Amino acid sequence: MSAQNRIPLNSEGLSLSRLVLGVWRLLDQGAKPSAAEVARLIDEAIALGLTSFDHADIYGNYGVEAAFGAGLAGWSGKRQSIELITKCDIMLTSSQRPDNRVKHYDTSAAHIKTSVDRSLQNLKTDYIDVLLLHRPDPLMDADETAAGLQDVVKTGKVRAIGVSNFTPSQIDLLASRLPFPVVTNQIEMSVTSTAPLDDGSLDHAQRLRYAPMIWSPLGGGSLFTGTGEQEQRVRAALQTVGDELGVDDISAIAIAWLLRHPARLIPVLGSLKRERLAKMVSALDIKLERQQWFAILKASTGQDVA
Amino acid sequence: MSAQNRIPLNSEGLSLSRLVLGVWRLLDQGAKPSAAEVARLIDEAIALGLTSFDHADIYGNYGVEAAFGAGLAGWSGKRQSIELITKCDIMLTSSQRPDNRVKHYDTSAAHIKTSVDRSLQNLKTDYIDVLLLHRPDPLMDADETAAGLQDVVKTGKVRAIGVSNFTPSQIDLLASRLPFPVVTNQIEMSVTSTAPLDDGSLDHAQRLRYAPMIWSPLGGGSLFTGTGEQEQRVRAALQTVGDELGVDDISAIAIAWLLRHPARLIPVLGSLKRERLAKMVSALDIKLERQQWFAILKASTGQDVA
Amino acid sequence: MSAQNRIPLNSEGLSLSRLVLGVWRLLDQGAKPSAAEVARLIDEAIALGLTSFDHADIYGNYGVEAAFGAGLAGWSGKRQSIELITKCDIMLTSSQRPDNRVKHYDTSAAHIKTSVDRSLQNLKTDYIDVLLLHRPDPLMDADETAAGLQDVVKTGKVRAIGVSNFTPSQIDLLASRLPFPVVTNQIEMSVTSTAPLDDGSLDHAQRLRYAPMIWSPLGGGSLFTGTGEQEQRVRAALQTVGDELGVDDISAIAIAWLLRHPARLIPVLGSLKRERLAKMVSALDIKLERQQWFAILKASTGQDVA
Repeated sequence: MSAQNRIPLNSEGLSLSRLVLGVWRLLDQGAKPSAAEVARLIDEAIALGLTSFDHADIYGNYGVEAAFGAGLAGWSGKRQSIELITKCDIMLTSSQRPDNRVKHYDTSAAHIKTSVDRSLQNLKTDYIDVLLLHRPDPLMDADETAAGLQDVVKTGKVRAIGVSNFTPSQIDLLASRLPFPVVTNQIEMSVTSTAPLDDGSLDHAQRLRYAPMIWSPLGGGSLFTGTGEQEQRVRAALQTVGDELGVDDISAIAIAWLLRHPARLIPVLGSLKRERLAKMVSALDIKLERQQWFAILKASTGQDVA
Repeated sequence: MSAQNRIPLNSEGLSLSRLVLGVWRLLDQGAKPSAAEVARLIDEAIALGLTSFDHADIYGNYGVEAAFGAGLAGWSGKRQSIELITKCDIMLTSSQRPDNRVKHYDTSAAHIKTSVDRSLQNLKTDYIDVLLLHRPDPLMDADETAAGLQDVVKTGKVRAIGVSNFTPSQIDLLASRLPFPVVTNQIEMSVTSTAPLDDGSLDHAQRLRYAPMIWSPLGGGSLFTGTGEQEQRVRAALQTVGDELGVDDISAIAIAWLLRHPARLIPVLGSLKRERLAKMVSALDIKLERQQWFAILKASTGQDVA
Repeated sequence: MSAQNRIPLNSEGLSLSRLVLGVWRLLDQGAKPSAAEVARLIDEAIALGLTSFDHADIYGNYGVEAAFGAGLAGWSGKRQSIELITKCDIMLTSSQRPDNRVKHYDTSAAHIKTSVDRSLQNLKTDYIDVLLLHRPDPLMDADETAAGLQDVVKTGKVRAIGVSNFTPSQIDLLASRLPFPVVTNQIEMSVTSTAPLDDGSLDHAQRLRYAPMIWSPLGGGSLFTGTGEQEQRVRAALQTVGDELGVDDISAIAIAWLLRHPARLIPVLGSLKRERLAKMVSALDIKLERQQWFAILKASTGQDVA
């Protein structure tokens, strides 16, 4: 993955790698990676061109950031050679947050500041490259939230602000109060989950020229194992396109399907296995033809376009 | 309810009380309040801090405005100490309107002028504080409607223009033709009817900084008597929050839930009973905690936030 | 149909006739009209006031444009006295397009240029009055598409650009990249298909002052023959209004229902029979009263307005 594959996020030099590594599963199934193992993971990711790492305060029951930070502290690379993305505003009911009695959101300025400070401490870093509001908060006071976001940017704790799972209407509201652009909206999309093509999300992103990040870019895995009609159709279509292109891994085709979109979608890869990641990264060498893209869309929706 | 609780509607000094009294039931069940009784109702409302009164031409089969106006004529207070809101554009099939053969809307300039003149006459007043278009008219010619609205403002018959039950798209259309802001959108919302949180209505209001008025803020009463699962869940949640706050009337909690929203929602209270109103007005002294607000939302939707 | 009935599309003198003739059925059921027959059809249409002709590259399995062009070549009238509308971007699987393996869309600059050149050749003309993107392409790269559209305008091949079946969000995206307005959005609407009244399409059109073209303005014919409840209700309502106005053809009432809308809807008439067309054109002499319009809407939705 070469430099020209990077996606600029703003006019001040911030960019992400064309594909991002999502580390939300770092502590899954009781895993307790050592600092050395995490440092190695970072190096392996960079070797694959994945210099941007996607976090959230809540991942791993509020534990992933700290586990990653322990590795980062002992890592031999330069902080400026990678990008750290993290999120705030979801308040889980969790042993780690005994005050939370009901799952809720918090976009208050106080919570933004507290959460950012905690993320910096956990990640053992001086700055976050991109801070995302994790979910649209129905109680968001846009003036206050924007003030809180400006504060963490002005103090140098955060380089840029984005959102996640927001509608265009919600982005318009927040953007109306900010003196800098919202640089991304991280949304769910995959060959089996194509709503953003129709609900205005990608129109809005392309119009305002922000690059959406994509979570669950492989449909949460059901793509490979699901027995539903849609999954079977899509698997067959990916396989056919793979055969046409001499690619035997359908996950690479599924990622390439996202990369083909002109809105510059940035898939967040959820695997931590080097081999799996390498296959997905190979999507960067694949350019789907327009008809191949539509053949996969047809398999997903079950019908021809209108 | 003190002055700082008022909601400014425009930059020319117009404001409403934090809660508004809706008088649509003034003639319900055959009631024929005398002028003196209406004058007393106005005084009682003011004593509770409710200085703004919500009307529509059609309320009480086109009769409420005149019954209220009879009371206002004999009332001892100053016209400037209260605000009168009324509406036009719904055309009922009614013994009072024998020309109406089918229920329809009329946003023509001619109807706006006629309806305003009639409302002024009925209310026995020189001006209406806020005139609302009652329902979005699929035949609205925005140029003509805006001309009609500007005319009633220029002639001093109306101080400000709002809408009711409009989508953001419909407001954008009307606003594109007006030289002054649309000051409110009166929509339905309550603890059992939360669509405006998701459909863009409150995003739009907050972005453009107009304060929505809220009709049926208690869900039309089914909240207290309904046996559906949602109503039972919501009643229990309101009761729990009431217990936490030492408030024994759940209607006050339900109103406080609306007041907690940053878009500055203005509930229109539909009761005409002093005691019921006093309980609802007590909501102004209640500040729900964020988690209490979300606990009630969860009871309403039946599930945690995402 | 007189001059004052024309609909201006832009500020450079381009206008369409109040009703447009859609020629998509020119080759239906094996019809092979001679050049002379087509020339006569053009004259008959003009005699009815229909000076604008709606095409698409794909109509008649990619054959209608050429059949029409053959007639146009021998026609005695002046090219400037008529307007030709055509479309591109749908890619049918067809014996005429053996390279198309799956139905898809193509809004690439290359396809736009190729398709326009082919349409000019088929239609035997030097310019297209209005080129429409036929369907929203989920792979539209707005920068590239806009560049392609600007190119065909700059070179004089096309006078103005419109779209078809686009949402407001999709129009906003395309318009954000064009130095000239999008002059129309051709959408489906009729007395039995009223979605554009509610989905924001007509709000957007009226706000931005572009005149929508309307395809299937008679509901695809099921209006006259359908046995569903909606069709029966609507037929009865059209008949009642026709009786009130002394009009015995319900298709004229159905067209007049569209013409009554303030967004200046331009119905595309799909018949090629002179008598049928004459009846529809007679709609121009009908002005529905507001209540007649709502009575038909009520028949369509099955209920009173709110």
